[in-house]
Amino acid sequence: MGRAVPVMMLGRLNHVGIACVSIDETVAMYERMFGAVVSRAKFPLPSQRVSVAFIDVANSQLELIEPLGADSPIHGFLKKNPSGGQHHVCFEVDNIVAARDAMVARGATVLGTGEPRIGAHGVPVIFVHPRDTGGVLIELMATPEGH
Amino acid sequence: MGRAVPVMMLGRLNHVGIACVSIDETVAMYERMFGAVVSRAKFPLPSQRVSVAFIDVANSQLELIEPLGADSPIHGFLKKNPSGGQHHVCFEVDNIVAARDAMVARGATVLGTGEPRIGAHGVPVIFVHPRDTGGVLIELMATPEGH
Repeated sequence: MGRAVPVMMLGRLNHVGIACVSIDETVAMYERMFGAVVSRAKFPLPSQRVSVAFIDVANSQLELIEPLGADSPIHGFLKKNPSGGQHHVCFEVDNIVAARDAMVARGATVLGTGEPRIGAHGVPVIFVHPRDTGGVLIELMATPEGH
Repeated sequence: MGRAVPVMMLGRLNHVGIACVSIDETVAMYERMFGAVVSRAKFPLPSQRVSVAFIDVANSQLELIEPLGADSPIHGFLKKNPSGGQHHVCFEVDNIVAARDAMVARGATVLGTGEPRIGAHGVPVIFVHPRDTGGVLIELMATPEGH
């Protein structure tokens, strides 16, 4: 008998996280190049040492991220990618604690303390180390209300 | 008077492109870690020197990409990102030729010949150079039928 296939955990692709040198300049670029406008203006998320802003498209969002403070984890990303670039993808999950437990049980590393923390959408999130997921930093977030 | 703001060009986030060392291993990882199954099995796209496969989520897709042939452009990406990683984001547009013309008029570099070519979904696509878009390789694709 084969190994049981886990239940599908990934819900909506909530957003693609994009690291920026400057959110203001990136917003201006999306407007000039694509006519896209910011849907949620830049605000600080001190617990994650980033500032973020959002651009909505029909079915998802772009999360623009810039460093906040000298110890922001985004500095390392920008050192490797000086113009910015795709930083993470974020999927909604039904139960963030169950998702965290599943990640640990399957041998993945959950970043930080391993406890879900409140993300930019006001709901708990975790990040899974890209070494466990084909080089892609994956955020899992509790499905926000209204979705 | 200010400069006119362009009309919003970006439609649905059709997919996130993820470069892989091995599509088969990445599909197996998504199944083992997240219970996700492949929605379109691996197939070659010789014109772009890649093989691709798709994993659907509720509102979008992941496009898994591996090199096809020694001259695949994915080899360079994997040299910089040996475990794989996020390669591009793809948005649907109403009119791919108008989108291409707008990109050129706004000073961006369209990759390849500059002419739209048929992508993995059977519709014409272009790629905009990441130097023009904050380090993110952006694919624009004609909206597929049924969307």
